[in-house]
Amino acid sequence: MIRTPEQYIESLRDGRIIYLNGEKIPDITKHPHMKGAINYRAKSYALANDPKWRDLITMEEENDRVMFLWKQPQTSKDLLRRRDLYIKCMKLGGIISGMGPDALAAAGVVAARMDKKLGTHYTDALEDYRTHLKRNDPAITGAITDVKGNRSIRPSAQEQHQDFYVRVVDRQKDGIIVRGAKMHISDTPGANEIIVSPCRAHREEDKDYAVVFATPLNAEGVKLFTSPRFYEETDEEALWNWPVSGFYGGISECMIVFDDVFVPWNRVFMCGEWQFSRDIAWTFGVFHRLFGTCHKVVFTEQAAGAAALIAEYNGIDKYPHIQEKLAWLAAHAEIINTMARAGCEHPDFFPDIGLAAPNLVYTNIAKFMFANDQFETSKIMCDIAGGLVSTVFSYKDWENPEEKPYIDKFLAGKSGIPTEDRLKVIRMIKDMSGHNHDNIAIHGEGSLAAQKMALYAGADWERYKAAAKRVCNIEGWKESKEFKDLSPWPPEPILK
Amino acid sequence: MIRTPEQYIESLRDGRIIYLNGEKIPDITKHPHMKGAINYRAKSYALANDPKWRDLITMEEENDRVMFLWKQPQTSKDLLRRRDLYIKCMKLGGIISGMGPDALAAAGVVAARMDKKLGTHYTDALEDYRTHLKRNDPAITGAITDVKGNRSIRPSAQEQHQDFYVRVVDRQKDGIIVRGAKMHISDTPGANEIIVSPCRAHREEDKDYAVVFATPLNAEGVKLFTSPRFYEETDEEALWNWPVSGFYGGISECMIVFDDVFVPWNRVFMCGEWQFSRDIAWTFGVFHRLFGTCHKVVFTEQAAGAAALIAEYNGIDKYPHIQEKLAWLAAHAEIINTMARAGCEHPDFFPDIGLAAPNLVYTNIAKFMFANDQFETSKIMCDIAGGLVSTVFSYKDWENPEEKPYIDKFLAGKSGIPTEDRLKVIRMIKDMSGHNHDNIAIHGEGSLAAQKMALYAGADWERYKAAAKRVCNIEGWKESKEFKDLSPWPPEPILK
Amino acid sequence: MIRTPEQYIESLRDGRIIYLNGEKIPDITKHPHMKGAINYRAKSYALANDPKWRDLITMEEENDRVMFLWKQPQTSKDLLRRRDLYIKCMKLGGIISGMGPDALAAAGVVAARMDKKLGTHYTDALEDYRTHLKRNDPAITGAITDVKGNRSIRPSAQEQHQDFYVRVVDRQKDGIIVRGAKMHISDTPGANEIIVSPCRAHREEDKDYAVVFATPLNAEGVKLFTSPRFYEETDEEALWNWPVSGFYGGISECMIVFDDVFVPWNRVFMCGEWQFSRDIAWTFGVFHRLFGTCHKVVFTEQAAGAAALIAEYNGIDKYPHIQEKLAWLAAHAEIINTMARAGCEHPDFFPDIGLAAPNLVYTNIAKFMFANDQFETSKIMCDIAGGLVSTVFSYKDWENPEEKPYIDKFLAGKSGIPTEDRLKVIRMIKDMSGHNHDNIAIHGEGSLAAQKMALYAGADWERYKAAAKRVCNIEGWKESKEFKDLSPWPPEPILK
Amino acid sequence: MIRTPEQYIESLRDGRIIYLNGEKIPDITKHPHMKGAINYRAKSYALANDPKWRDLITMEEENDRVMFLWKQPQTSKDLLRRRDLYIKCMKLGGIISGMGPDALAAAGVVAARMDKKLGTHYTDALEDYRTHLKRNDPAITGAITDVKGNRSIRPSAQEQHQDFYVRVVDRQKDGIIVRGAKMHISDTPGANEIIVSPCRAHREEDKDYAVVFATPLNAEGVKLFTSPRFYEETDEEALWNWPVSGFYGGISECMIVFDDVFVPWNRVFMCGEWQFSRDIAWTFGVFHRLFGTCHKVVFTEQAAGAAALIAEYNGIDKYPHIQEKLAWLAAHAEIINTMARAGCEHPDFFPDIGLAAPNLVYTNIAKFMFANDQFETSKIMCDIAGGLVSTVFSYKDWENPEEKPYIDKFLAGKSGIPTEDRLKVIRMIKDMSGHNHDNIAIHGEGSLAAQKMALYAGADWERYKAAAKRVCNIEGWKESKEFKDLSPWPPEPILK
Repeated sequence: MIRTPEQYIESLRDGRIIYLNGEKIPDITKHPHMKGAINYRAKSYALANDPKWRDLITMEEENDRVMFLWKQPQTSKDLLRRRDLYIKCMKLGGIISGMGPDALAAAGVVAARMDKKLGTHYTDALEDYRTHLKRNDPAITGAITDVKGNRSIRPSAQEQHQDFYVRVVDRQKDGIIVRGAKMHISDTPGANEIIVSPCRAHREEDKDYAVVFATPLNAEGVKLFTSPRFYEETDEEALWNWPVSGFYGGISECMIVFDDVFVPWNRVFMCGEWQFSRDIAWTFGVFHRLFGTCHKVVFTEQAAGAAALIAEYNGIDKYPHIQEKLAWLAAHAEIINTMARAGCEHPDFFPDIGLAAPNLVYTNIAKFMFANDQFETSKIMCDIAGGLVSTVFSYKDWENPEEKPYIDKFLAGKSGIPTEDRLKVIRMIKDMSGHNHDNIAIHGEGSLAAQKMALYAGADWERYKAAAKRVCNIEGWKESKEFKDLSPWPPEPILK
Repeated sequence: MIRTPEQYIESLRDGRIIYLNGEKIPDITKHPHMKGAINYRAKSYALANDPKWRDLITMEEENDRVMFLWKQPQTSKDLLRRRDLYIKCMKLGGIISGMGPDALAAAGVVAARMDKKLGTHYTDALEDYRTHLKRNDPAITGAITDVKGNRSIRPSAQEQHQDFYVRVVDRQKDGIIVRGAKMHISDTPGANEIIVSPCRAHREEDKDYAVVFATPLNAEGVKLFTSPRFYEETDEEALWNWPVSGFYGGISECMIVFDDVFVPWNRVFMCGEWQFSRDIAWTFGVFHRLFGTCHKVVFTEQAAGAAALIAEYNGIDKYPHIQEKLAWLAAHAEIINTMARAGCEHPDFFPDIGLAAPNLVYTNIAKFMFANDQFETSKIMCDIAGGLVSTVFSYKDWENPEEKPYIDKFLAGKSGIPTEDRLKVIRMIKDMSGHNHDNIAIHGEGSLAAQKMALYAGADWERYKAAAKRVCNIEGWKESKEFKDLSPWPPEPILK
Repeated sequence: MIRTPEQYIESLRDGRIIYLNGEKIPDITKHPHMKGAINYRAKSYALANDPKWRDLITMEEENDRVMFLWKQPQTSKDLLRRRDLYIKCMKLGGIISGMGPDALAAAGVVAARMDKKLGTHYTDALEDYRTHLKRNDPAITGAITDVKGNRSIRPSAQEQHQDFYVRVVDRQKDGIIVRGAKMHISDTPGANEIIVSPCRAHREEDKDYAVVFATPLNAEGVKLFTSPRFYEETDEEALWNWPVSGFYGGISECMIVFDDVFVPWNRVFMCGEWQFSRDIAWTFGVFHRLFGTCHKVVFTEQAAGAAALIAEYNGIDKYPHIQEKLAWLAAHAEIINTMARAGCEHPDFFPDIGLAAPNLVYTNIAKFMFANDQFETSKIMCDIAGGLVSTVFSYKDWENPEEKPYIDKFLAGKSGIPTEDRLKVIRMIKDMSGHNHDNIAIHGEGSLAAQKMALYAGADWERYKAAAKRVCNIEGWKESKEFKDLSPWPPEPILK
Repeated sequence: MIRTPEQYIESLRDGRIIYLNGEKIPDITKHPHMKGAINYRAKSYALANDPKWRDLITMEEENDRVMFLWKQPQTSKDLLRRRDLYIKCMKLGGIISGMGPDALAAAGVVAARMDKKLGTHYTDALEDYRTHLKRNDPAITGAITDVKGNRSIRPSAQEQHQDFYVRVVDRQKDGIIVRGAKMHISDTPGANEIIVSPCRAHREEDKDYAVVFATPLNAEGVKLFTSPRFYEETDEEALWNWPVSGFYGGISECMIVFDDVFVPWNRVFMCGEWQFSRDIAWTFGVFHRLFGTCHKVVFTEQAAGAAALIAEYNGIDKYPHIQEKLAWLAAHAEIINTMARAGCEHPDFFPDIGLAAPNLVYTNIAKFMFANDQFETSKIMCDIAGGLVSTVFSYKDWENPEEKPYIDKFLAGKSGIPTEDRLKVIRMIKDMSGHNHDNIAIHGEGSLAAQKMALYAGADWERYKAAAKRVCNIEGWKESKEFKDLSPWPPEPILK
C-alpha cells in the first residue's frame, strides 16, 4: 500500500520518547521545530499519490502499489531510477530519506552473500520485512554511525564501558536484546522504523557487535535525542532568513539510544557474522553515497546559481576573475553529477547473487569531490557575495517600516533588481555556506578518510600497473585483461 | 584622561538611534544582546586603569595618562607596542577596536602628506581632535566600507541615487553636511564617536566623495542598524554553547546611515582632495590589517589548540595523517604571527613626514594568508572533530537531568576526559568554523582581491626583475640597489 | 585508399624545408632525431592495414577503404568511435595526430554554418578536399596557434609588423597568398599536409586574418623550424633513459612559416568571414580537447601505475598517507576518463546542419582537470618516488660493468624486485614529471584560461540560476526547461 | 689558512675513483661536465681572498684567517651571518656547499650532548678535526641520506644485505672500518673531504649504524658515482640554453660507496650511541634546511622576476589575473625569506652546552613552504610564459643565420624588447620549472614528510592547547607560561 500524508502524520503519534534542546516532546506533530521535518516527509507521500509522479516513486506489485525503493536493485536501470527518484523528490520538497532504503539494499546484498557462503537464512527474514514494508508502508530510516568512544580502540576493548557500539547483549528464543547508541541519524523524528547496521569491520572478539536488525522507533527502550536546530525562527520568517533550510527545518539528526531493546528474529538480518561487518558497512556506504550525491546535484546547482545571481546583482558578473570562480562552481556541479550518474550507468554487478550496487569507484569519487571541496564552494560563494553574508539584515528588520526604507535604499545593488531579491540571495548563501552544510558535507555519508580508503581499495590497480609495466618492459602486464591484447612496448620500429 | 568602565557605560546612554533585529533600542545598556559588546569594551577601560596593564595600554602625557593608541606611530617600537597592546587586550577580554585608532593613524599620515603637498591644514584639525581624545577619552570606531550599489560603477555615476558612497552634500561656513551609509562597521554600538573615511580611489568627478571626518554617534541624522546576532542565548548558556563568541556577543557590526549630518570644520580631515582618496584607503588598510592579524594570532592559536585537544579526546592524536593536519594548523599560526610581527619590525618609514606604517608587503601577506586559508582551517578542524560539530547537543540538553546521563555515557571519548570537556571543545570548533568567522575572515579588513592588489602594488619588482635580468644578461639589473654591487652573471670561470 | 607504411615513409622525401637544432635537414627519414616521430606515424598505417585493427581505424566507402577520421561526426556513436580509435592507436604506438582530423571536423561544422547563413560554398571546397584525402590518404596535421607578438594587441594593430597572425596578403583569380607563422604545431615533421585555422575571435578590421585553408608542407614558401628534442639519446639508450618519450622522440612541434604561400581556392575553407573566426577556434578547441583527453587517459593510467609500482618497490605501499596519494591519482585518472567519455555520450548536436561535436562543458572539464592538476600529478609521483628522480643513473652507467654491481647492490628496493625494474620506473617518472609533459599539459590543446572561458561560456547558467531563484522565490525560474514542471518552492505545508 | 682557487683546483687531482655517465674519469679538472661544479667552488675561494667579501666569509683566528663556517654557532648573530654568507656567495657564483659545514655544526651540538650525558670525548675528536680544517682549508661536504633498500624495514633487518645504511663493520685499535653507500650527496666531485652521519633514528639492534665520521674522498675504498647531468651543452651554449643551471653544471650529486673504508679514531664523532642518531639527523636537518632556504631566497627572487619579465614581454602584465599570479610569487618569496630569517633571529638556544641552532619550527616552515609549493611555482611560471617553454628554440637555432631572421621576426613579443631577451627569459623559466629543480625542491634537505614530522614535533602544543582550554574553562591552561598571567576566561562582566 501507499499511505496518505495524513495517515503518515497520524502514525507519528506513537508514544515515542524524544528530546529536543532540553525538552521532552509528548507529540512531535505539535512541536514547531519538528514541523519542517514532518512536512518534508509527508510531502513524499503526497507525491507518491500524485498521478504526475506516482509512476516514478511507486511500482505495481500483486495488484497493489508499493514504493519503488523497496525493490532490491539488480540492474543499471534500477539504479538510475533510484537516483532519478531521489533527485526529483528533493527538488519537489518531499524527502525520502535514503538512510532506510540504502540500509535495506545493503542488507539485501550481504544477506544473500552470507546465505550463499554460510548457509544462513537471513534473506528469508529480510523478505519477511520487505513484505511488511510493502503492506504497511512505514517511513523508515537507517542507523550506521556508532558513538564510538575512543576512536583508536576496538569495540570490545573500550575502557569506560562496552556500549560505544551497538551490540547484542542477549540471544533469546524469540529474538535478541540490543544495547548501545547510534549518532547523527538523519530523518529520525519523521520515521516510523529503523534498520540498524554496524559501521566498521570487526574481528572475532567483536562478534556481538556484528548485528543488523530493524525495529520500530517507539519500541520499548528506544530513546531519541534530537540535535538542536541551528535557528529559532518558524514559518515565513524561517523561510526568509534561511531560504534553503527554512522549509525542512535544518538538520533532524538524532542520537538513538537502545536501552536493552528486544528485536524478534524475523527482524534480525545479521547476528554474529563478524566477517561480514566490513561488507555491510561498505555496501551501505556506496548505496548511501549515491543518495548523498543526489543531494549534492541539487545543492551544487543551487550554489552555482546563487553565486551567479549575486555576481549579477552586485554588478560584478563581467569581471574575468569572477567568471573564473563561477566556472569553477559549474565544473564542480557537473563533475559530481556526471561521476554519480556514471556510477549508476556502470554499476558493480554481483553475478553470483544476481544483484547490483552503484560503481564503488565512481560513486566514491563523486562523494569525495563534493565533500573535499565543500569549504572551497563556501569560500567562493562568500568571496563573490561580499561581507554582507556576515552582516545581512533579517526578516524582522525588513518588515519594520522604520528600517525598511533605509535598507531598501542603501542595500540596493544593480539597478533594476529589487533590494529584497538581493537580500534573499545573500541569505541563501549565508544559509548554504555556514557549517550547517559545510561540516555535514564532510561527514555526511562517511568521512573523507572513508572515501579515500574506498577509492584506494576499489581502484583498478591491476590495470594501472600493467600500463606502467608495459612501458618499462617489466614482466606481468599481460595479466591485465585491458592490456593482454596489445603488443609489447614499443612496437617494432618500421623505419630503422 | 582615562575613563572608568562605569563612566564609559554611562556615556552610552546618549540618545542614539539604533535598531536591532527589527526593534528600536531605547537604551543599549539594558538590552541583553548588547551586553557582550559593551562589556568587551568596558573591560578595556578596566585594563587601562589596572596597574598590571596600565603601562602597556596608556602613556603619560602632560601629567595626565592617555591612551597609547592616540599616538601617531613613528617607529618600529611604536608599532610593536601597538601590536602587543591589541593582542594582550584581546586575550584579556577587553577589546579596543582597531577601527578607530587605525582610522586616526591613517588620517594622520595622509593629512601630513596633503598639508605638505597642497598646503592644506588638516593636521591642525587632526591635532585638535587628538587633544579632544586625550582630554575626554571617548570610545571611537572607524567607518570605511560604503554600501556601494553596483560595484562596477563609480560613486558619482550610480544610477539609482548618488548616496551609495558617503559624500559632502553641502559646504557651509561652520562645517559640512554629509550623506550616505557605511556598512559592516565593527564595534559601533559600543563606541561614542566615529572617524569616517573613503574606501576607494576617486577621480575628479567623484571629489565630493573624498571626505574624512569625525562625528559623535548620537549626532543628529546618524542612524545605526545593527546586524543581527547569530545566536539567541545569553549569559552562561551563551558561553557554553558558543565558547568563543559567547562573551562578546558575536558580531556587533552596524550599517551607519548619515542622513544629512553636520560636521564642524575642526572635525574634517579631508574634503575634496580626491587624489588622496586611494592613499587614505590604502593607509587605513595596512594599519587595520595589522589589527586584523593580531586578532588572528589569537584565533589561530586557539584553532590549533582546539584541534589538538579534540584529536586527543577522540583518541586519534597518534595517527600520522592527523598529526600532519595539526602540523598545518601550527604552521599557519606561526606564519601569520611571524609575518605580522615582521611587518612591525621592518615598517615602511616616510621620512618626509616623520611617520611610519606597518610594512605593506609583510602585513598584507599575513592578512592574506589567514583570509585565504580560513576555510581550510575550518575544514581541518571539522575533519578532525567529526560530524558531532553539526549534531552536538546544547547547554539545555546537558542541563536536563533526564538527558545528561545518556549524553555523558555515550558521547564520552578517550578514557579520563570528562564528556563535558569534549563537548565544549566540539562547541568551540562549531563556533570557530561557522560562517560567523569564515566569511568575516575573508572580508574583514578588506577582501582577498584588496590584499592581492596591495601585494602586487607593493612588491619589490625592481629587485625581482634585476635578479632574473642578471641571470639572463639582460640590461638594467645594475639599477637595483640590491644587485648593483654584484658582479655580472656568471662570474668569469677560473678553470677554463 | 589506405597507404602502406612504406608508401607513407617514402612520401616524406618531398623536398620540404626543415630545420632542427640549428641544422637544415635534407631528408628527414635519415635523421636519427626524426625517426621516432616518423615511426609513430608509420605504425598507424601498419595498424590501418592490420586485420586486427582495420575495422576500427578505417571504413568501407565506395568499394574502397578509407580512414574513419575523414568522416564528419554526426552522432554520439561517431564520437565514441573516434575516441576509441585515438586511445587504441596511442596504446599501440601508432599515433594519428588529432590536429589534422580535428581541424577537418571543425572546418566541416563551420563551413556548413557559413554556407547556411551567408550563402557561401565552402562545404563544396571541403568535400573536394575530403575526396582528395580519401583517394590519396596523406598524413595531415592542423595549425591553430599563431606566434601572436604582443598578446594584448589585436592582429591588425600589432606594432612591429602585421604578420604575427597568419593572414591573406593577396586574393588572386586561382587562389590566395598567405603569410605569417604558426607555433607549437605538433606532429608536423611526420605530416604531408596541413589545415590552417585562426586561433581567436576577430573584428572586422582583422578580416584578412579570418582564413582557413589546406596546403602541402612542401609547398613553395613553407618553412618548418622544429623545436629541439629534450634528449640526445637514440634507440635502446633512449628507451631505457626515457621509457615514455624514448620511442616517439619527445616532442615534434614545429614553427611553420608561411612565406607568401599560394593556396588554390579549392583548398580555402574560410576567407574573410571574421564573424566566424571565434566559431572555428572554439569548434577546433572542443574537438582537439577530446583528442587531448584521449592522450591523458593513457597518461594518467600510466602515472597511477608508475606511482603504485614505485611505492611497492620502495616498500612504502602499506602506509596510509601513500595510499591516500595513490587514491588521488586513481581518482584523477577516472575523472578525466569519465568526463571525456561523457562528452561523447552526450554530445552537442547541431540539428540545423545535421552535425555533432563533443559536449563543450564535459570535454572542457576533462581537459581542464588534467591541465590544472598536471603539476600536482608530478608532485605526487616525485614525492612517492623520492630524490632518485633527480639523481638516477643512466643506461650507460647501468651498462658499464664496473658500475653495475654497485648500482645493482645499493639501489635495490624491496626484496625480490630486480634493481633494473626499480630504475626503469624511476626513469619513467622522471620522464613523465619533467616539463616535457608538465608544460605541455597546461598549454597543449589551449591554455587554462581558454578552458575556463569555454566553461563559463558553455555552462548552463539558466538552469543554475533557476535553481537559486526558485528557492528564493525570485521571478523567472519557470523559464528554465528543467524547472518549469516543478511546483513553486517551498511546497504548501501539509501539517500546518 | 685560506687556500687560493688554484690550490683548491690542484687539490682535486688526488686519485679519487669517480664515474660519470658510464665513464671513469681520471682527472675531473679536465672533464667538461665537471668544470661547472669545480668553478662554482673555486669561486668561493676567490671570494674568501677578495678584500670586498673576505670579512664576511672568513674570520681572524690566532693570526690566521680561517673560514667563518668552521665556527660552531652560539648566537643569533652567528646564525644571521651564516645565512648572509650563504646567500651572498650563491649570488656571487661561489657556492660553499652547506652539506659539510652543516654536518660539522650538527656533529658539534650532538658531540657536546653525548659527552655531557655519557662522558664520551667526541668533542675532542671534533676539535681536532676543526683544527685540521682551519690549518688546511679543505673543501668539505656532508653525507646523510642512505640508499635505504626497503623503506619499511629497519637497517639491521633488511633482507637482501645489511649495507643499505652505512655502518661500522669492524672496530680496530686505530680506527673503524665502515661499509655502505650514501645517495644524492651534493657537491661531492668538488669536495676534498666528507662528514658522514646517519639519516634516521635507531634502536639498539641498529647500533652499528649509529656512526659519524670524516674521511677524505680519495681514501681507499671510497668510490664516487656521479648522477648524470640533464644537459650535454657546455660553455656559452650551456649558458644560453640553461641560464640558471648552465654555469654550475646542473646537479653534481654522487652516490658514495664506502667499500670497507678505514677511519682513524680522531675522525670518528659518534660510534654506537644509537640513542643519539635521531638527534644528529634532526640537528643536521635544521642546519641544512637553513642552508636550503638561503638557496630558495635566491631562487624565488629569480622566479618572481622571470615571471614578471615574461608577463611584460608577452604584453600581458596589465591583466588582473596575471598580476594575481605574480603577487602569489612575490608573497611566496617573502614568506620564505622572512620565515627563514626569523629562524636565525629567534634561534633555539641550548644553554647546557652553550650552543644554538636555527629555530626548528620557523626553519622547517620556510623549507616546507618552498618544497610544498615548488610545483605551484613552476605551474605559474609556465602558465604565464606560455607553450613556448616546451617548444623554444636553442642556441644553435639562434646562431644559424638562416633560421635567426625568422625566429627574430616571429618570436618577438612586446615592441621594443629584443627577441633574444624574450627567448632567454623563456629558457630561464624552462630551466627553473623542469624537474631538475622541481624534484630537488621536494627532496633536497629532506622530504615533505620529514618537515611535517619536524613541525609537528617542534610546535608549541602546550601554548595552543592552553589557548583552547582557557576558552573552554578546561583545567590545565595555567601551566603554559604564555597564559599563566592571564585571568580566567571570560572576565567577570562589568555590566551585568
